[in-house]
Amino acid sequence: MFKYSRNNFFSIKKVYKANEISKLFVKILIKKRLTNNFDILDISSLKFIKKNSVLFLDQEINAPKNYTNNILFISDKETIFNNPKYNNIILIKNLNESWNLLINLIYSHEDSSDYTDEFIKYNNSYISKYAKIDASSKIYNNCVIGKGVEIGKNCIIKNNVVIKNSLIKNNVVICDNTSIGTTGFGFDFYKRGSSFLNPQIGIVILDDYVHLGSGCTIDRGKIDYTYIGKNSMIDNLVHIAHNVEIGENACIAAQTGISGSVIIGNNVTIGGQAGFAGHIKIGDNVVVAARSGVTKNITDNSVVAGFPATDIKEWKKNIIRNRKNGY
Amino acid sequence: MFKYSRNNFFSIKKVYKANEISKLFVKILIKKRLTNNFDILDISSLKFIKKNSVLFLDQEINAPKNYTNNILFISDKETIFNNPKYNNIILIKNLNESWNLLINLIYSHEDSSDYTDEFIKYNNSYISKYAKIDASSKIYNNCVIGKGVEIGKNCIIKNNVVIKNSLIKNNVVICDNTSIGTTGFGFDFYKRGSSFLNPQIGIVILDDYVHLGSGCTIDRGKIDYTYIGKNSMIDNLVHIAHNVEIGENACIAAQTGISGSVIIGNNVTIGGQAGFAGHIKIGDNVVVAARSGVTKNITDNSVVAGFPATDIKEWKKNIIRNRKNGY
Amino acid sequence: MFKYSRNNFFSIKKVYKANEISKLFVKILIKKRLTNNFDILDISSLKFIKKNSVLFLDQEINAPKNYTNNILFISDKETIFNNPKYNNIILIKNLNESWNLLINLIYSHEDSSDYTDEFIKYNNSYISKYAKIDASSKIYNNCVIGKGVEIGKNCIIKNNVVIKNSLIKNNVVICDNTSIGTTGFGFDFYKRGSSFLNPQIGIVILDDYVHLGSGCTIDRGKIDYTYIGKNSMIDNLVHIAHNVEIGENACIAAQTGISGSVIIGNNVTIGGQAGFAGHIKIGDNVVVAARSGVTKNITDNSVVAGFPATDIKEWKKNIIRNRKNGY
Repeated sequence: MFKYSRNNFFSIKKVYKANEISKLFVKILIKKRLTNNFDILDISSLKFIKKNSVLFLDQEINAPKNYTNNILFISDKETIFNNPKYNNIILIKNLNESWNLLINLIYSHEDSSDYTDEFIKYNNSYISKYAKIDASSKIYNNCVIGKGVEIGKNCIIKNNVVIKNSLIKNNVVICDNTSIGTTGFGFDFYKRGSSFLNPQIGIVILDDYVHLGSGCTIDRGKIDYTYIGKNSMIDNLVHIAHNVEIGENACIAAQTGISGSVIIGNNVTIGGQAGFAGHIKIGDNVVVAARSGVTKNITDNSVVAGFPATDIKEWKKNIIRNRKNGY
Repeated sequence: MFKYSRNNFFSIKKVYKANEISKLFVKILIKKRLTNNFDILDISSLKFIKKNSVLFLDQEINAPKNYTNNILFISDKETIFNNPKYNNIILIKNLNESWNLLINLIYSHEDSSDYTDEFIKYNNSYISKYAKIDASSKIYNNCVIGKGVEIGKNCIIKNNVVIKNSLIKNNVVICDNTSIGTTGFGFDFYKRGSSFLNPQIGIVILDDYVHLGSGCTIDRGKIDYTYIGKNSMIDNLVHIAHNVEIGENACIAAQTGISGSVIIGNNVTIGGQAGFAGHIKIGDNVVVAARSGVTKNITDNSVVAGFPATDIKEWKKNIIRNRKNGY
Repeated sequence: MFKYSRNNFFSIKKVYKANEISKLFVKILIKKRLTNNFDILDISSLKFIKKNSVLFLDQEINAPKNYTNNILFISDKETIFNNPKYNNIILIKNLNESWNLLINLIYSHEDSSDYTDEFIKYNNSYISKYAKIDASSKIYNNCVIGKGVEIGKNCIIKNNVVIKNSLIKNNVVICDNTSIGTTGFGFDFYKRGSSFLNPQIGIVILDDYVHLGSGCTIDRGKIDYTYIGKNSMIDNLVHIAHNVEIGENACIAAQTGISGSVIIGNNVTIGGQAGFAGHIKIGDNVVVAARSGVTKNITDNSVVAGFPATDIKEWKKNIIRNRKNGY
């Protein structure tokens, strides 16, 4: 989608070799099969597979052939481990635990105590020395713009806005007290607390002409990005979780919440106080009525309402029938 | 209601004559009838009609007789245009588009790139040179008080509060991280993105003894104001949209959202996480239970619950009946 | 639970004697019975009864014997007054009114105009001279840390966070734009407005390894504390009202709201956009589905959903039956 380097946001602490990684996992390692040894320079997702990277696998994939010699796979499923097509693979006991261990070893991020950034006062805001802001964009008072952030042309960043780990394209407007690029709520269900939250090393991308209201929270991606498409308009106090992707021309009213990894198509209209369960797909041109609770995929051009959200005509019929029957 | 000058908040860039305006609309103008030529100095709403102003019409009105010679009407309805009582009227293709075009020509506002304000550090906050704050009021840390804002006596403005385009009367308390006077979510349904949002040139008025909690967002009016009446108390994370008017003695619990142009009477009590559809009227002494979704006008002294909200007794009967029937 | 002195947060303006207090109440006093005279140095709750304090009573209690000579009871119930076991008791007309009157006389708090604090700029944040922050903890930009606050080891306080009237233990992470320790929404139902809100003189306690997301609001206790237990993780835009107590290992998803005085057990999981009525008790190991509205006590190990929340199996059956019946 957009080119960016993870290292601009999350400093790599040390370049490990594949065989060093397996040694670091000593406590949770079950077995390993290492055909090659190579530098680990990045983390791959299933969607973006990169050379010289680690890829955490909870399902089989078709890795591009030429990468098999320089990707280190990590899985907690023996069937995956046993598939000979993965030249370099480690079988561990717990995927979450190995993610936390490895990411904290390799990367410094804002939830780790060794994270650093350097700020300069610019107008009345604090801007990282390692951020790039086009001179045509305006930053009002008490904002914080972190390391690696890029802000394009003609943006207006109002007051008390926090932007970290994000690429902001052109003509974007962000209203007061909104937080962008903060830590996604990812965790192992059975191990809780601040030190067990999964480190999040992705970013937020806001495309051209996005408008964000006041008091919103947009979490960064876990590996890749949280994305809001061109011309999308978002009202106040909206929560958008990690890995969410929203297409072009979205219109999302106040206090709506979108859970992690939801994919939303183009031209979608969402009323206020709606909610979306995680990992679902909303098609193009969908309308979601205010206060809907969407729990399943929604096909293109649907209009839904209620909780669990269904076709709005069904929902209305239900209400009328209930009233007639004295229900 | 309260006297204020729009120019204190939104600088007028150039005074146009009525006949100049019609020329600016060349691309969307259908026809015009100009009997007089006069300076355009303000924008009228249907509620407050001012001399030497523009008035956007989507419905017929009874304009005061003496104003007909110095009001420029703009409409996209031919029947309105054809009514001879409007001495000075322009028929255009799209009311939204003409609003955006005209307001951006005349006014500088915080969502336009030519907006300016000048801040002075006072205690640990940034206060506009063009704001007036009574010496008896306290402003804590990291606040931003913008151009034209007036704050009366004995107010307490806590930390990281942003107040723009607002009149704050006396003895008002505003808690941390709340945003007041930010941009309302008004738009043409078919044209989306930051550059198509309707410019909002109204204000927020908080009357005496209002209490606002933390993390709230109160949007300014489109033309006139968003108003919160005397002694009204609002809890945390509440969203109040543009043009909302709330009477005296309201009590509104946390995370409630009130859509644009809702009118709420006196002595109203609203539970947490309630929602209100736009443009409805809530009477005096109404009680709205927590988590209600109010979609229609509510008469005085009603107690409502559920979604869509109905009489609370009906709502409770329904729940009991459902349980009895094994529903 | 944790030792702390109220005076570190709320300065005592003057030490009154018990018989002076009764004179201050002249307008609302009905009768009094004072057997002893002693200094009033603190306020007791039913849970924590302290020597030389005032205790507001709306129900009978078993006060420890040795305290009866140095506790001044205040009640608006004649039956309580008539119980001879209270050696020192004042009968007043209205408990709320006497709370407001007395607390404002004795204490200075952030909602009273005589409150003071002194801030020092540290890194890019404002820290009270009277706060204690362990050197191992990091405070990012534009934060405000108020009087009496203590922050333990290895905490990360991100940007634009406001922390007042709070004890933050070790390894706590607090994300951007969150407000902690702000004023609880307590009031006399019939007297509204900023000057009638009940003064809140309790604190917030965040125990070890708590994680708080962005844009949250955590109100301080009225007399004692709002408490979040070890290893509890809270997502973005969550509202937690005064006196709430949450056990260990809670996981609370975004935009959930918890009303005043709710007690939540250990190992509880709460989905997004859920709501809790005030003064209810949620057992250990409870799961509350997203968007539930919990109105009653929930026993240990329950899984609930819907509004009003019931057993999740009932809720699902209901939905399926409705659909089958064409409802």
